[in-house]
Amino acid sequence: MEGVRAVASGTSATDDVEKAIRDKCGVVGVVAPAGTEVAPLIAYALRALQHRGQESTGIVTQHEGKSVLHRNMGLVENVYTPEVLRTLQGPLGIGHVRYATTGGSTIENAQPLLVTSAGGDVALAHNGDIVNSKPLRDEFIAKGWSFLTTNDTEVALRMLAAELATTPNRVKALRNVMKRLSGSYCFTLLIGDTLYAVRDPLGIKPLCYGSLPGGGFMVASESTALNVVGGELIRDVEPGEILEVTLDGVKGFLPEKKAESAHCMFEYVYFARADSIMDGATVYDVRVDIGKRLAKEQPALADVVIPVPDSGRTHATGYAFASGIPFAEGLMKNRYVHRTFIMPDQKMRDQGVRMKLNPVKSVIQGKRVVLVDDSIVRGTTMRRIIQMVRDAGATEVHVRIGSPPITSPCYLGIDMNTRGQLVAAELTIPEICKMIGADSLGYISLEGLTESIGKSRSQLCTGCLTGEYPVAIPGEKQRGQATLF
Amino acid sequence: MEGVRAVASGTSATDDVEKAIRDKCGVVGVVAPAGTEVAPLIAYALRALQHRGQESTGIVTQHEGKSVLHRNMGLVENVYTPEVLRTLQGPLGIGHVRYATTGGSTIENAQPLLVTSAGGDVALAHNGDIVNSKPLRDEFIAKGWSFLTTNDTEVALRMLAAELATTPNRVKALRNVMKRLSGSYCFTLLIGDTLYAVRDPLGIKPLCYGSLPGGGFMVASESTALNVVGGELIRDVEPGEILEVTLDGVKGFLPEKKAESAHCMFEYVYFARADSIMDGATVYDVRVDIGKRLAKEQPALADVVIPVPDSGRTHATGYAFASGIPFAEGLMKNRYVHRTFIMPDQKMRDQGVRMKLNPVKSVIQGKRVVLVDDSIVRGTTMRRIIQMVRDAGATEVHVRIGSPPITSPCYLGIDMNTRGQLVAAELTIPEICKMIGADSLGYISLEGLTESIGKSRSQLCTGCLTGEYPVAIPGEKQRGQATLF
Amino acid sequence: MEGVRAVASGTSATDDVEKAIRDKCGVVGVVAPAGTEVAPLIAYALRALQHRGQESTGIVTQHEGKSVLHRNMGLVENVYTPEVLRTLQGPLGIGHVRYATTGGSTIENAQPLLVTSAGGDVALAHNGDIVNSKPLRDEFIAKGWSFLTTNDTEVALRMLAAELATTPNRVKALRNVMKRLSGSYCFTLLIGDTLYAVRDPLGIKPLCYGSLPGGGFMVASESTALNVVGGELIRDVEPGEILEVTLDGVKGFLPEKKAESAHCMFEYVYFARADSIMDGATVYDVRVDIGKRLAKEQPALADVVIPVPDSGRTHATGYAFASGIPFAEGLMKNRYVHRTFIMPDQKMRDQGVRMKLNPVKSVIQGKRVVLVDDSIVRGTTMRRIIQMVRDAGATEVHVRIGSPPITSPCYLGIDMNTRGQLVAAELTIPEICKMIGADSLGYISLEGLTESIGKSRSQLCTGCLTGEYPVAIPGEKQRGQATLF
Amino acid sequence: MEGVRAVASGTSATDDVEKAIRDKCGVVGVVAPAGTEVAPLIAYALRALQHRGQESTGIVTQHEGKSVLHRNMGLVENVYTPEVLRTLQGPLGIGHVRYATTGGSTIENAQPLLVTSAGGDVALAHNGDIVNSKPLRDEFIAKGWSFLTTNDTEVALRMLAAELATTPNRVKALRNVMKRLSGSYCFTLLIGDTLYAVRDPLGIKPLCYGSLPGGGFMVASESTALNVVGGELIRDVEPGEILEVTLDGVKGFLPEKKAESAHCMFEYVYFARADSIMDGATVYDVRVDIGKRLAKEQPALADVVIPVPDSGRTHATGYAFASGIPFAEGLMKNRYVHRTFIMPDQKMRDQGVRMKLNPVKSVIQGKRVVLVDDSIVRGTTMRRIIQMVRDAGATEVHVRIGSPPITSPCYLGIDMNTRGQLVAAELTIPEICKMIGADSLGYISLEGLTESIGKSRSQLCTGCLTGEYPVAIPGEKQRGQATLF
Repeated sequence: MEGVRAVASGTSATDDVEKAIRDKCGVVGVVAPAGTEVAPLIAYALRALQHRGQESTGIVTQHEGKSVLHRNMGLVENVYTPEVLRTLQGPLGIGHVRYATTGGSTIENAQPLLVTSAGGDVALAHNGDIVNSKPLRDEFIAKGWSFLTTNDTEVALRMLAAELATTPNRVKALRNVMKRLSGSYCFTLLIGDTLYAVRDPLGIKPLCYGSLPGGGFMVASESTALNVVGGELIRDVEPGEILEVTLDGVKGFLPEKKAESAHCMFEYVYFARADSIMDGATVYDVRVDIGKRLAKEQPALADVVIPVPDSGRTHATGYAFASGIPFAEGLMKNRYVHRTFIMPDQKMRDQGVRMKLNPVKSVIQGKRVVLVDDSIVRGTTMRRIIQMVRDAGATEVHVRIGSPPITSPCYLGIDMNTRGQLVAAELTIPEICKMIGADSLGYISLEGLTESIGKSRSQLCTGCLTGEYPVAIPGEKQRGQATLF
Repeated sequence: MEGVRAVASGTSATDDVEKAIRDKCGVVGVVAPAGTEVAPLIAYALRALQHRGQESTGIVTQHEGKSVLHRNMGLVENVYTPEVLRTLQGPLGIGHVRYATTGGSTIENAQPLLVTSAGGDVALAHNGDIVNSKPLRDEFIAKGWSFLTTNDTEVALRMLAAELATTPNRVKALRNVMKRLSGSYCFTLLIGDTLYAVRDPLGIKPLCYGSLPGGGFMVASESTALNVVGGELIRDVEPGEILEVTLDGVKGFLPEKKAESAHCMFEYVYFARADSIMDGATVYDVRVDIGKRLAKEQPALADVVIPVPDSGRTHATGYAFASGIPFAEGLMKNRYVHRTFIMPDQKMRDQGVRMKLNPVKSVIQGKRVVLVDDSIVRGTTMRRIIQMVRDAGATEVHVRIGSPPITSPCYLGIDMNTRGQLVAAELTIPEICKMIGADSLGYISLEGLTESIGKSRSQLCTGCLTGEYPVAIPGEKQRGQATLF
Repeated sequence: MEGVRAVASGTSATDDVEKAIRDKCGVVGVVAPAGTEVAPLIAYALRALQHRGQESTGIVTQHEGKSVLHRNMGLVENVYTPEVLRTLQGPLGIGHVRYATTGGSTIENAQPLLVTSAGGDVALAHNGDIVNSKPLRDEFIAKGWSFLTTNDTEVALRMLAAELATTPNRVKALRNVMKRLSGSYCFTLLIGDTLYAVRDPLGIKPLCYGSLPGGGFMVASESTALNVVGGELIRDVEPGEILEVTLDGVKGFLPEKKAESAHCMFEYVYFARADSIMDGATVYDVRVDIGKRLAKEQPALADVVIPVPDSGRTHATGYAFASGIPFAEGLMKNRYVHRTFIMPDQKMRDQGVRMKLNPVKSVIQGKRVVLVDDSIVRGTTMRRIIQMVRDAGATEVHVRIGSPPITSPCYLGIDMNTRGQLVAAELTIPEICKMIGADSLGYISLEGLTESIGKSRSQLCTGCLTGEYPVAIPGEKQRGQATLF
Repeated sequence: MEGVRAVASGTSATDDVEKAIRDKCGVVGVVAPAGTEVAPLIAYALRALQHRGQESTGIVTQHEGKSVLHRNMGLVENVYTPEVLRTLQGPLGIGHVRYATTGGSTIENAQPLLVTSAGGDVALAHNGDIVNSKPLRDEFIAKGWSFLTTNDTEVALRMLAAELATTPNRVKALRNVMKRLSGSYCFTLLIGDTLYAVRDPLGIKPLCYGSLPGGGFMVASESTALNVVGGELIRDVEPGEILEVTLDGVKGFLPEKKAESAHCMFEYVYFARADSIMDGATVYDVRVDIGKRLAKEQPALADVVIPVPDSGRTHATGYAFASGIPFAEGLMKNRYVHRTFIMPDQKMRDQGVRMKLNPVKSVIQGKRVVLVDDSIVRGTTMRRIIQMVRDAGATEVHVRIGSPPITSPCYLGIDMNTRGQLVAAELTIPEICKMIGADSLGYISLEGLTESIGKSRSQLCTGCLTGEYPVAIPGEKQRGQATLF
């Protein structure tokens, strides 16, 4: 998995080896007993979700009927200074982390958004991609509305605000809005003085909730957010469900007609933290299992299994276990490389990967190496890694990948290259193998992947692998399934 | 003039001796020939208007149909780095500076605001106070609208966006919005690809325009903004006028029925730069004339005329000239004091003024001093200055003030204390004289002031002096004049 | 007075209209009763001396035998945060401000310097130029010493440290070091747990001391530093004097043989604050008197006297008073211009001065103007100001300057252009008049200047005016006077 | 391995789980062909050595006889902006990274130091601890020298400067200085226009050199610094060796009498990067071998081997391999936690470790766990980790440690707790086992460790394990070996 992405903000950090795939956001919502300050709890939870977005972050809290918003560019640990946290008072709040894209990296796009409406203050944090936001936006603009941002979150928020003017019942108002939205979305919301959470009818992006040690509840994109504050996971939010969360408990409202889910398979393969439990499965276990199946489906005659750190490590552990080939950390990562550094000349620029990864010669020299990673996007980073491994003395390099080839773009919450940049959209597997300079290249099958995840193929969104999407996307095929609403 | 105001943002600068009165904003708009980058021109103009607002600043430019917005906290010279200016492309733009208030000092309130609407992109920069924004906001919220900020600018902007959905003629749409607004407002706007400027029907806040040396036009709060870029003042925008500014020229649209103007007299007394020409008068000349009249109205038997720098200097020059008493700079200001500094203990905190002003003993000792300033708000700073002058050996201190007593709050564009904090709202002139510790205290008369400005009393807003306002303010008296629209 | 100087550090501020002459430093030393924290007092004093140096600042305090140093680039108000002040504990300390030069603007050159020596901790803050530091440095390097900086302060400090190893009497050790130094220097020092102050035998740079309101004493470059903390000036430090300052009092040690003084006349003309009292004279009074004499020596048939703000204002006041020509502030300065701003193109760059100064047309138009400034260095800024005044409609422009022509460089504490850049080193007065585009040009005479200062010519250093220096400078003439020590 | 250390500088990063042991520094030196800019090469090398020090960094380069120094607090990637690198010109230079201690974290202590001396400019970067620097410093102070810093580096540098005044032969001068120093030290130096490197006679800290792809040579603390710039390791610098490095080649000068080496065994166990080759051994291989031996020496009846990431991972791999127990990443680390974050209350503060580590329940639940780390310092972090593993459902927790118990402090280049804070100095192994709450606790034997390293016990410094040091330390036992010089 590879590609180089310009990092917009000076303080943003990058993980792994210049991944070309990034999750779009993470959300949190907390209700705690009166007297508790939730802002630090939310900040901790957001830090646990930092891998879902490093560009900007924001928190809205509510204290005695007064909402306070703080948004800024940068990492959670830099944005929430003691001074900032002191301004974010109250026992009720939501939070957001957002990833770094080129161009749109401005404070204007940071979330949550907070508006005054007929229903009082309404704050919204959003993870996902509402694919019909453009026609909806045009419709409302024609009616005389105006939009301060270009994002789909403002569209959803203004729709809700308008709905609340005629539908005072908040759950009903939310349901009415949901009926008009298509795509992936997980919301945490403050409406008036109450916390709500919403997951789209296909459950594309993850959302779960649990209890807090001091009382109250937290909703979050991943269960690890609960862990860092000592909370206990209760369950995932169901696809299409609306949660009303108060100190008294969590009321769930399911849609009348439940669609089949379409969970994003890439959360399991790469995005989510390995220690998260997501729609019933521990991500770590899924990845080890992928590695094991990969060893069966795509065996290799080799001396050592080496992961591309950190994303390929868990898969590699499984591969080594199932194949019996010894596991070794043959590529060392520099933990202090947080951002792209000045490159004195083209020659050094070509060594981009070298800056983050360094081979352990004694592990590689004279060996037949199985190199394991979770995915390949553009192929250029993998090509450089393979060259590095060969330079370190590997006699053969066999590449094994923990996902099927990515052939189509994602429209539902992942920032990925366009189809033209996806190596597997253009080349066959043997051609990719040649292009990256491997001796052999094997991907896990779609069947293997779905079995590792433990869900049927129809319960997962595999749009980027098959080109068939669970919702209507102009110009793309829709998976054979009933209309959503 | 006095009082101490907390400065919210670290980089903000304060002028003069802790003024308790501050102007609310400054606006700019520029159209230049294709190929010109207007952002640096706007930045220069905003720096010339920096005295009108030091909290935050923003610019919107338009390039090939694409609008770009940059807003940030801080001074113009710090916000517009070369990198930022490079992103603000195009030959068309508007800009804004905003002052520092306590509390609301956040990026969320910075201007211009930029929305997408039925009329395309609309950007708005606003100077003034729309006094009926609260009921208007409530009306629209009830209709299902939602507001991201708490300021009156967003109300006006959304109204305009809605109007454009049904009234494609932009001037007509602007006029329709104006008919619903009450208060003071000067707008610079980008609607689609055209620059507009609007001044409220009473012309409370200043707005003028002129030509640029390289072609094109600039609209600005004060004429000095034109001077710094080598432009030439053409004329003031008329009260109630809408300007449509293109490279072809400036078209003015006057209201059907022209109200009598109500120019803010405080712009002449204190806010505006002395080198500005405003509604026909050079501010410097007005201030010298105020000083001269004050010498006639409120003579003093004294040895030296000393200004409170920098705001009282011009008035003092006039006073000295007319009275024949020698002028001397008996109070020196530290030019490097930009913000409040840590105070080790209460004793030093009491010396607040001492940090910025220091007496020249040899000028003061044994002398009868006339101390001239433009206004008195709370009286506490003046009391400390008088004490300082006495400590330096003055035998008598006669205070002369270039405005009548301020007895009522401003609702129309000035940040001033509440009535309870205005010393002249509570005390008579002899009582104030005693409270500040002066030997005598004289204010210019309202008649003298209006004659110095060269306008009749009915052409000026003197609400803060008389308690009678040119527009309806709940709980306050309205000046006997016809309904506005 | 003019020229453009690159400002090295982002936070540095410039005063006046891009002066090409800058003072090199300011020093402070404080002893206060046990339990007092002197760091805030020193910080206030340094802020009062900020005009003497805006590049960097430092403080050393001593608490229970432990010395703490904090140095940084930037203005006093930015460097001394509450956190920093908290680390600078103790009732005893010295401080320093340093000006911005091109090149050497690094933290390495910031002062005070603090060393451990045979005499314990020794900290030194220095204002001046030791002209024989190069040969002294070479001498010690040959003996095996090494130097971490390139400045003369480290030379003096290491000499003192070495002297203390053999001469435990500190006053004697200081005297021994002074005997080897030539040039201008004012030191504040901490040696062990005692504060010392030293002024060079010619008293070139100013130094004075006074008492503090809460007990204890402060030594400072200018008396205004005492004023801001409520202190009382006691007297100037005598040329050649060493002060030992304790809570018990201030002991002065004079040199055996007293040389005639050579006070820098430019401190009176431009550098020092007008509210300072320096070697017996109030700077403000000297400047007014210069203006009055200038009116006599160089009369002008004119309608208005206009100062170049802020440096020419006091001189102009005197000129107006003595000539009877009305004084007016015809040039307005933008108080928010702290540093050079991006210039979009050469045309705007040429308007450099316009950014800071703007003419008041109504004051100038149709008038014969006397333009008063304190000095002319390169002539280019004055040329642009005259053009600006003519563009504003002046019919004649007569320039009057409060110092004689500057024909030679300064080696003794002022950062000035090289001889080749001094317009008066190359051109006659009529030629300068033509070059700057004035109708007439008049400088005050050297005799007039010295009479205004109230000292005989032989008591002042006038090296930059006459080319004859009070100490030996390689390649320059020395004033006919006895050997210094 | 554990303990919590306050991080002084805002931008500093921490590695691993709050290690209480830190290496003191890393050094680099480069000679490249004329026309090459070495500063970026040095910056890359320093980033590869960032794990050896995150507090401050500095570079000195030399260009046409002119030395330039830049030092600052912070990480390499933040300090060396393009602007800074542009000022660091020339084909010759040295660099340094320094770790964060409490207290002494100021710019004053950053390295390299650069002085002017009888031998011209001399710059020095130092890794190690000179144990007799205090008496040496006192001796020189008594002779009249003075010191600007409190560190041992300035002592060595001034000694060398003095030596060069009488011994122009630089290698001889270096040897003379080395004869007076005791302790651990690796120096990179610029003397005049030549690069030198020095390693102490015991070779305690690592130092190696290699060739650069474009010509020239690099000396560095670890071989990975060579890798990142495409260089090739030539060999380690020998204990006691002085290198003179020019474009023509590298001349080594060995001491007359060679002492037996005393390489720091902790570099292999924890400090050095796994991909470094050090005194003949690849660190990764040593750590895997330690894990294998540990499995033999301290077997455990268990279901899963779990490393404490990241420091215990390599050892754990070896343990799993040799024991046949499956390896699993049961503890996940948050890669975005760079520094300590505000802790709202004590309860959350106690969860300190939880912020960085999170258990993967499905891996741990119902399992007998072998937990592998490289060392234990204070025991408190391990106790919390064990509790976390038990809370996740482990039925047994067996702790295996890749080093013998640490019973004594380090005086020779490692920042470690005092003896009183070392848990193994106070408690027996069974007592530690009880204190940390493990079911069993096993350390590798000293014999096992030395065999894994591949050196005899007498070739390693094991002072922290045995209390016997290779050099004289007041109050500590010296290893039975001849006097050093």
